[in-house]
Amino acid sequence: MTGVPPRGLEERLRDTRAKLESDVDLWVATSGSPGGVHLIPLSYLWDGTAFLISTPRASVTGRNLLADGRVRLSLGPTRDVVVIDGTAEPVDIADLGPETGDMFASRTGFDPRELDEPYEYFWIRPRRVQAWREANELPRRDLMRDGRRLG
Amino acid sequence: MTGVPPRGLEERLRDTRAKLESDVDLWVATSGSPGGVHLIPLSYLWDGTAFLISTPRASVTGRNLLADGRVRLSLGPTRDVVVIDGTAEPVDIADLGPETGDMFASRTGFDPRELDEPYEYFWIRPRRVQAWREANELPRRDLMRDGRRLG
Repeated sequence: MTGVPPRGLEERLRDTRAKLESDVDLWVATSGSPGGVHLIPLSYLWDGTAFLISTPRASVTGRNLLADGRVRLSLGPTRDVVVIDGTAEPVDIADLGPETGDMFASRTGFDPRELDEPYEYFWIRPRRVQAWREANELPRRDLMRDGRRLG
Repeated sequence: MTGVPPRGLEERLRDTRAKLESDVDLWVATSGSPGGVHLIPLSYLWDGTAFLISTPRASVTGRNLLADGRVRLSLGPTRDVVVIDGTAEPVDIADLGPETGDMFASRTGFDPRELDEPYEYFWIRPRRVQAWREANELPRRDLMRDGRRLG
């Protein structure tokens, strides 16, 4: 609605890569049995192909992801959106390499390995990535479908 | 993690009211049978007690909310968060008063009454409202529980 023309695929891919690399937090939406929905902001590490997040094992998000790895992520603001459908795989702290743990801590500013409360890490691999700013970008918002990049 | 002390209840309530009145978009998380989760940004009208949103009746969010009114909303940014658990009730365009329809259109910049695609409005009433900025505000993040304001 701003009069700015829609970005082309190349530009959206470039903007999206830059956002994934520079942002610190994203929104994590999960659902639980029997159907409730949950949504919280979490810090993440992006390694170029997947997101690493960490949350208390007993939290709603932790329990939801352990029961059903389907997750939807978003990065804002709401007029410059990246939305990701992904699959989360749990990684126990013992199985996380020390370098990855260090990178996560330095990126997010918190280190679940040092906390008393039991935390679980999850690698989230994107299956679908969409990016749009205004309504005129909605028709071609897909950047990745079925785990395959479109550009 | 910024060293800023946590806000008191009064300040959070004031900030939260101001945000609900001044923001234009929020994130809407819904879940559908058999358990998928969905998350999109939508514009809203806040009337002081409930949110009015509108989305195509055939969209994922529209279908999810028509099947199960439980919804979780959030307003960002991720370091100045308001998160709302609410219940959505559908309102057909024919049943929406013309003044409410006009207010919605002027607030959001789009008027579903003028579109060919069938849209559904939903009133979302908060059951729980939480607001926090950094980790030090998490322990007392509840501003409303069970539909009752705490301040």
